[in-house]
Amino acid sequence: MPNPMYFQSIMMALQKFWAEKGCLIWQPYYSQVGAGTMNPATFLRVLGPEPWNVGYVEPSIRPDDGRYGDNPYRLQQHYQFQVILKPDPGNPQELYLQSLQALGIQPQEHDIRFVEDNWESPALGAWGLGWEVWLDGQEITQFTYFQQAGGINLEPVSVELTYGLERIAMALQGNYHFRNILWNPDYTYGDVNYQAEKEHSTYYFEKADIERVREMFRLFEEEANLALDMGLVLPAHDYILKCSHTFNILDTRGSVGVTERQALFGRMRDLSRRTAEVYIQQRESLGYPWLEKPSLAPSAKQPESTMPQLALPPAEEEATSADFLLEIGTEELPAGDLKSALEQLHHLAPSLFEDLHLPYESLEISGTPRRLTLQVKNLASRQEDQTVQVKGPPADHAYDQNDKPSQAVIGFARSKGVQVEDLQKAEMENGVYLVAQVHHPGSSIFTVLPEKLAALIAELHFEKSMRWNASGVSFSRPIRWLIALFGSRVIPFHYAGLDSGRITHGLRFSQNETVELGSVTDYAPYLASQGIITDPKVRREHIREQVANLLASLKSSEEIDETLLDEVTNLVEAPTALLGHFDKSHLQLPAEILVGVMKKHQRYFPVRSLNGSLMPYFITVRNGGKAHLDSVARGNEEVIGARFADAAFFMQDDSKHKLEDFLPRLDTLIFHPKLGSMLNKTRRIVALTGKLAEQIQLSPDQRAIALEAAELCKADLPTKMVVEMTSLQGIIGKYYALRDGKNEETAQAIQDHYLPRGAGDGSPQGMPALVVGLADRLDSITGLFAAGMAPSGAKDPFGLRRAAISLVQNLIDREVEIDLRESISHTSDLLPVKTSAQDHNACLEFIRLRLENLLLEQGYRHDVVRAVLAEQGHNPVQAVCNIRELTQWVADENWALVLAAYARCVRITRDQKECFPVVIDRLIEPQEKSLYKAAQKVRSEIGDSRGVDVFLSAFSKMIPQIDRFFDTVLVMDENIEIRQNRLGLLQEIVHLADGKADFSKLEGF
Amino acid sequence: MPNPMYFQSIMMALQKFWAEKGCLIWQPYYSQVGAGTMNPATFLRVLGPEPWNVGYVEPSIRPDDGRYGDNPYRLQQHYQFQVILKPDPGNPQELYLQSLQALGIQPQEHDIRFVEDNWESPALGAWGLGWEVWLDGQEITQFTYFQQAGGINLEPVSVELTYGLERIAMALQGNYHFRNILWNPDYTYGDVNYQAEKEHSTYYFEKADIERVREMFRLFEEEANLALDMGLVLPAHDYILKCSHTFNILDTRGSVGVTERQALFGRMRDLSRRTAEVYIQQRESLGYPWLEKPSLAPSAKQPESTMPQLALPPAEEEATSADFLLEIGTEELPAGDLKSALEQLHHLAPSLFEDLHLPYESLEISGTPRRLTLQVKNLASRQEDQTVQVKGPPADHAYDQNDKPSQAVIGFARSKGVQVEDLQKAEMENGVYLVAQVHHPGSSIFTVLPEKLAALIAELHFEKSMRWNASGVSFSRPIRWLIALFGSRVIPFHYAGLDSGRITHGLRFSQNETVELGSVTDYAPYLASQGIITDPKVRREHIREQVANLLASLKSSEEIDETLLDEVTNLVEAPTALLGHFDKSHLQLPAEILVGVMKKHQRYFPVRSLNGSLMPYFITVRNGGKAHLDSVARGNEEVIGARFADAAFFMQDDSKHKLEDFLPRLDTLIFHPKLGSMLNKTRRIVALTGKLAEQIQLSPDQRAIALEAAELCKADLPTKMVVEMTSLQGIIGKYYALRDGKNEETAQAIQDHYLPRGAGDGSPQGMPALVVGLADRLDSITGLFAAGMAPSGAKDPFGLRRAAISLVQNLIDREVEIDLRESISHTSDLLPVKTSAQDHNACLEFIRLRLENLLLEQGYRHDVVRAVLAEQGHNPVQAVCNIRELTQWVADENWALVLAAYARCVRITRDQKECFPVVIDRLIEPQEKSLYKAAQKVRSEIGDSRGVDVFLSAFSKMIPQIDRFFDTVLVMDENIEIRQNRLGLLQEIVHLADGKADFSKLEGF
Repeated sequence: MPNPMYFQSIMMALQKFWAEKGCLIWQPYYSQVGAGTMNPATFLRVLGPEPWNVGYVEPSIRPDDGRYGDNPYRLQQHYQFQVILKPDPGNPQELYLQSLQALGIQPQEHDIRFVEDNWESPALGAWGLGWEVWLDGQEITQFTYFQQAGGINLEPVSVELTYGLERIAMALQGNYHFRNILWNPDYTYGDVNYQAEKEHSTYYFEKADIERVREMFRLFEEEANLALDMGLVLPAHDYILKCSHTFNILDTRGSVGVTERQALFGRMRDLSRRTAEVYIQQRESLGYPWLEKPSLAPSAKQPESTMPQLALPPAEEEATSADFLLEIGTEELPAGDLKSALEQLHHLAPSLFEDLHLPYESLEISGTPRRLTLQVKNLASRQEDQTVQVKGPPADHAYDQNDKPSQAVIGFARSKGVQVEDLQKAEMENGVYLVAQVHHPGSSIFTVLPEKLAALIAELHFEKSMRWNASGVSFSRPIRWLIALFGSRVIPFHYAGLDSGRITHGLRFSQNETVELGSVTDYAPYLASQGIITDPKVRREHIREQVANLLASLKSSEEIDETLLDEVTNLVEAPTALLGHFDKSHLQLPAEILVGVMKKHQRYFPVRSLNGSLMPYFITVRNGGKAHLDSVARGNEEVIGARFADAAFFMQDDSKHKLEDFLPRLDTLIFHPKLGSMLNKTRRIVALTGKLAEQIQLSPDQRAIALEAAELCKADLPTKMVVEMTSLQGIIGKYYALRDGKNEETAQAIQDHYLPRGAGDGSPQGMPALVVGLADRLDSITGLFAAGMAPSGAKDPFGLRRAAISLVQNLIDREVEIDLRESISHTSDLLPVKTSAQDHNACLEFIRLRLENLLLEQGYRHDVVRAVLAEQGHNPVQAVCNIRELTQWVADENWALVLAAYARCVRITRDQKECFPVVIDRLIEPQEKSLYKAAQKVRSEIGDSRGVDVFLSAFSKMIPQIDRFFDTVLVMDENIEIRQNRLGLLQEIVHLADGKADFSKLEGF
Repeated sequence: MPNPMYFQSIMMALQKFWAEKGCLIWQPYYSQVGAGTMNPATFLRVLGPEPWNVGYVEPSIRPDDGRYGDNPYRLQQHYQFQVILKPDPGNPQELYLQSLQALGIQPQEHDIRFVEDNWESPALGAWGLGWEVWLDGQEITQFTYFQQAGGINLEPVSVELTYGLERIAMALQGNYHFRNILWNPDYTYGDVNYQAEKEHSTYYFEKADIERVREMFRLFEEEANLALDMGLVLPAHDYILKCSHTFNILDTRGSVGVTERQALFGRMRDLSRRTAEVYIQQRESLGYPWLEKPSLAPSAKQPESTMPQLALPPAEEEATSADFLLEIGTEELPAGDLKSALEQLHHLAPSLFEDLHLPYESLEISGTPRRLTLQVKNLASRQEDQTVQVKGPPADHAYDQNDKPSQAVIGFARSKGVQVEDLQKAEMENGVYLVAQVHHPGSSIFTVLPEKLAALIAELHFEKSMRWNASGVSFSRPIRWLIALFGSRVIPFHYAGLDSGRITHGLRFSQNETVELGSVTDYAPYLASQGIITDPKVRREHIREQVANLLASLKSSEEIDETLLDEVTNLVEAPTALLGHFDKSHLQLPAEILVGVMKKHQRYFPVRSLNGSLMPYFITVRNGGKAHLDSVARGNEEVIGARFADAAFFMQDDSKHKLEDFLPRLDTLIFHPKLGSMLNKTRRIVALTGKLAEQIQLSPDQRAIALEAAELCKADLPTKMVVEMTSLQGIIGKYYALRDGKNEETAQAIQDHYLPRGAGDGSPQGMPALVVGLADRLDSITGLFAAGMAPSGAKDPFGLRRAAISLVQNLIDREVEIDLRESISHTSDLLPVKTSAQDHNACLEFIRLRLENLLLEQGYRHDVVRAVLAEQGHNPVQAVCNIRELTQWVADENWALVLAAYARCVRITRDQKECFPVVIDRLIEPQEKSLYKAAQKVRSEIGDSRGVDVFLSAFSKMIPQIDRFFDTVLVMDENIEIRQNRLGLLQEIVHLADGKADFSKLEGF
């Protein structure tokens, strides 16, 4: 092995390593691919039941990662080494780590982490769960358990390793810019590839002819379809890859809008799915010829004989109780899954022992990313005995005249193993019966626990779970060992292809990495010796203390982000915090970017000075002890530097233009084929903002700001910074607007019109932002409904539900009354597609339903909400106000009377098809005359008000008249004129509630 | 190293080998490429002065090589290992052979040959000279000295090695079908790639949508142009490769006609040239940053100390003569170049020694592919002394009255180193001069020979020659050593970067492969010990004898093909003939195919039984001795089997259709954009055949056959067999026509209408073939002229010169008289483009010029040819006849009189603009009356004849009248009427020669 390891040597060493492990060594694909996954040697070979183990280099092309060769890490072409292990050999993490050692990486000197990463390829209809492998904060490998490809479930699951060779070379050579990597003794990576980076970046970002590339996409797609129609899998797949690459070019040129993106992905996914199906049919019709090919043997497992044994298990003894340990050893669990699993165990474990009647002294649940632990102190070795009363035959026919038991009784007693004499009588709900007291002696836990332990693990559920081996079991990540110890004895059970035992694992590459526990008491000391803290609370505080100390050492004011602390706690089992710094020059970037990168991408704690400004430091928490902290820090510093440089690259590049200069580029972003580009949308937002400003009577100043903000609200979408980090949309718009000299309020409105960005987010403070956001969302909802893209079922590709929720949330929060019917009508007028009254109603109903859900979540009564929204759903603020009022009314003790009075009027009239006018002269009885008068009074009291309170207060006053009317007057008089006149009177009363609420929807009506 | 060497191990072993030699290990390219050459790591890096040594695998895609996975060797994707050594390390053949050893090939056990192969990529504007490397008859590597890329001369030259990995794996594993190659211990090559072969073959041959693929080509080309306009080399190159691949698909679909092919290649070549230029500009503007990178050191050369030394050179002695040896050691010379070099040496060497006044006893020239040898017996060690007479001052002023020499004389004597008294007088053309006898003593050959030896080698020229190292010297192939020995002493000289010495090389891998010669006498015994026969005549007879013995052993009647024998003689230096056989089933193929493949592709001697039918054997001649002949035979047998299988594949596939069924496919072959498809052309040929049949009055039977043949004459072009082996066009048509039940004559005409296919080929026997061929060629010439594609300068892309030559050759051979003016007019009527009289004349003139050249080559006098052709060029046969006649006339002793008489008539009239009618009444003088009468008689004798003989015989008879007329009559009489009448009479006489010949073009006129 050369010293240093050259770039080319890394490729050759990985080929050699994996060939020796039994992998077939394959070659890169001959069309541009974004990743080795797209090579047929992965995409197709992972399908179906046949084994397949393969390794190959893949120069991967990702146009939008191009940085003209200037960024140390980002490249439009980077070299992957791709490995597929199918089926899971049982120890893929170990094999992987061995391969790093084969490259000369000394794991002890680094922080190697498996960081949750769920992989998905929309174009391939493929997804999997796994990790990014981090070497000192740097992602060097993608490690995935492939669950689906081409929309087809993979059985068996394949393990996919994707090495990022540049990153590995940097780490091995200590060169932290790709251009300095030594490719061989004579040439650097920059020598051979820098020019390509410059040129391809220029081509992809600036020059590629959009129309031509779009046309290529179309041709490729058609050829793919043609090939598929002929059952030609590989030619089809090749053209799909070409579609994907041309799509990437279009995307990099910024010419693919949200809607078009969905459509194109959909088409590619559809092709991939068909490809996968045809491939599987082919293999099946061939009789799966490779079924007999060898799988990879997990030869790398440490032989048990060489394992340190902490203590000999004592001779068997039948203690009445002992400590119990269940350890579920896993590959690294995602932070969220670890949290969830611990919560579930807290819930499930105690009842497990209760249900089994196994008493214990105390029970403790803990866990780290690599283990879930249940420890029980003094658990009984046997269940408590139980006596149960069992129901027998009815007592009255039990004995004949001679007091002799019937055959039924004798049989019952025998079946329960008791004497007839011991049967007792017991009175039950439907009579007196004979009962037997049956005694159940408790079983040994060795008998009852195994099944329950397996069931316990099976009961753990996760938001996303995965399969990995032939057992078909699903879990957050693979389970690799199981310990079930009762004192010093193993409680044998089987789950997920594993037998429970006494072998546990500490930190990887530590001394005594793997040990055999003599008894439960060995467990805690062993983990402590490894620096592992299993209790999350303790671990959390341990981290907090370390971070706080480091912050204090820098005289920092930063409060520790509790959410981040939670996450970090669940990412490590032996936490050691360390300080890194970055170049001060990066502080010129907007703080949102810096903090976003640090927290979101790297899970670093940012550091602020006493005046609140960011300092050029970060704190990260490694997994492991204090050894080699310097090299760990070094790696992390390089990573964050490169990430910041990347952001700076975008900001710099964008700064060549004013924000408004990006507007024309919006025309290349298709919003929806029927609704035009994002520029068209922007123009509609501006016009609608004007209308809405009138509707809510905005001041002229505010209106002007709103209009300016509307003009620019989407202008940052084509900026490089936003293309790169979509989550910064609006924020970047604000920064660029300020840079261009726009006023503060306009800039803020650009940022805030997206609010709320998600649940838990607030509404915009300024009215301009509110109005622009309203215009944006109304345009989306109304437009996409008209275009036939209304959400259905689980499908909501444009997030219209979220949009509607945000819309009503903002109106309510800011108490803006507005008639959405009118607004929707304004919106429709601006659309390029025709809309019908039905469309308008559908939109309104859609928004109303979101409002309803929102109010129900806030605890309002379902019937109250529905009653008011039926009449006032178009004006959320007013509706909420009336719901509050109605809520109080229905809580009133006299409410039943009020409702009853109104209901009588409704019930008798509701089947009438016609509305009858009241002719005063035909009012005969005094009670009806009096009611008529009362009604007139109530009407004038209500006036134009839509208030429920106003209505009900007024209405309440005529309840006596109503009651008297019904008590004395026969509505359904034989005389048709009289009858209709009376019905008309009641109808009039009923309609007094119009526009306030539909009381018939209330309970008790 | 695994045993056997798996396919993947071969790739890894080559990576390792070349990495250790100092090559950068690179990766396959990410677009479909036809060869590793197209990877930018070759195509671009070979440009400019910077060193570059690289090796990489390249999965190469050649659609038309697809065989649905059925042929053992032919694949639409095959794996190359590509190596570039820039500059030439001096020993690339040795490095290459070492790499074979690194793969476990034992060279001693095989016949490893370097077989001439000149490589060219029309799309890349690239070419080079080199070899196919054959392992037992199988091509396993392409070895090229790259001379040009992108139309740019390469300085330095790069050595390109392209390993065919499947072939190598077959040889190593003894598996002679690609599907059986073991890729790794578990999977075969067929396992992982058979399906791809099937599917891609189906796609490329049957399914690819021609219109769409053509559109892709257009888009790629436009993007390439766009990228180039922006100076983006690599994106441009990528799109050029995509053009090339789509072109290949179109070609495989059989949709690219000859003309379109030229056009598309031209466009791709143009793009490649621009790419190369921009790349070089880039590197230059960067200051060629790699100039200091290391070149590959020829470390593999055997250190001289370990070399066997045949005898110690004797102590220096000054012998008066000794034997002389010049050996020019080369890498394998092509057979033709070896022959040519030997001829040149035969011519140059003797005069070299004569010019130097170095006497010798005898001189012998010999050579093999690896050496050119000049051996001189008893060459004098010094030049003979020379005495030269030098001219001095004129004798008459040399001495004054006192007989004292003038200063001029004294000075002259001094300058020549002689005494004044020794000057002599000599009479010369323009007077008497003093002369000095100057004595030149001869120099040692060590003084005079070095320069002349270098000059001798420099004077050798080849049809195609190449450069290889910094010396810039051109030769057929690289010169690798020089021996110049005089007795036991080296005559030191320097050429092509080499110093002359005494080290020579025998057979590679033999014992004593390299030796140091003690003296010239060691040379012959050493070569003999190696089995090397340097004298080509001896070698030829040695081969003939071996082949004859093998033929005799099979009781074969086959005569040995002398041309092939010549070639084989020049391909080996230590010939051993061996017999191989092939499967009898292949004998079902047409003999033309079998023999063509054996002779042309493999240089095998076919074997025929006594009745003349082919036997399932072949004879090949290896280079080397009799060891391991079995494995050599085995390899050769596998090769020929696969080649025959390939032909059978095509025949088989074609047999699904009748010959006429291929006609519609001709419509996809563009002949020329302005002239339509090959189907359009075929239709024109049919119509024209009808017209021509009339013109030459073909019998109805013959006419019918001609028309049927015309219909089908191009139908075999889209057949797979012809697409694969173009040289079989017509032949395959014949076979398929017979198979379809067409009559023998029609079939033969289909084959023969192409005759003559080249110089030395005969004309068609049947008239139908002649007429169809005539129609075909007239259509091409007239059509392409009209389309503006007339040949100019060296440019004749459609071979119209060849067509015209064949056209006249056929007419002459078969003595078919035809007026081509009329034929061209018929042709034009059928064309889709308009033609002018000017076009017709241009065509006629073009054909006339070919006829003229043909006749001049046959030895006819230039003036005679031109005189007749001026009047009869439109009818070649008649013209030839008259040229023969005129030739006899001009050879006659009285010719001058005849010509003079005619000339007098011409000279006096030729300036007249007008043609004057003769009025008999105005004839006054008897001599003019008599002449008039004579002329009338001559006119009636000639009649309609166009014969020169007829004319001259008749004309001769009135010579006396002519002479008398001029002697007595004044033509230019004062009276204008009389004058014009006399001129008219003479004009009439002059015009008697019209249509026979233009005598004014004759010498002496």
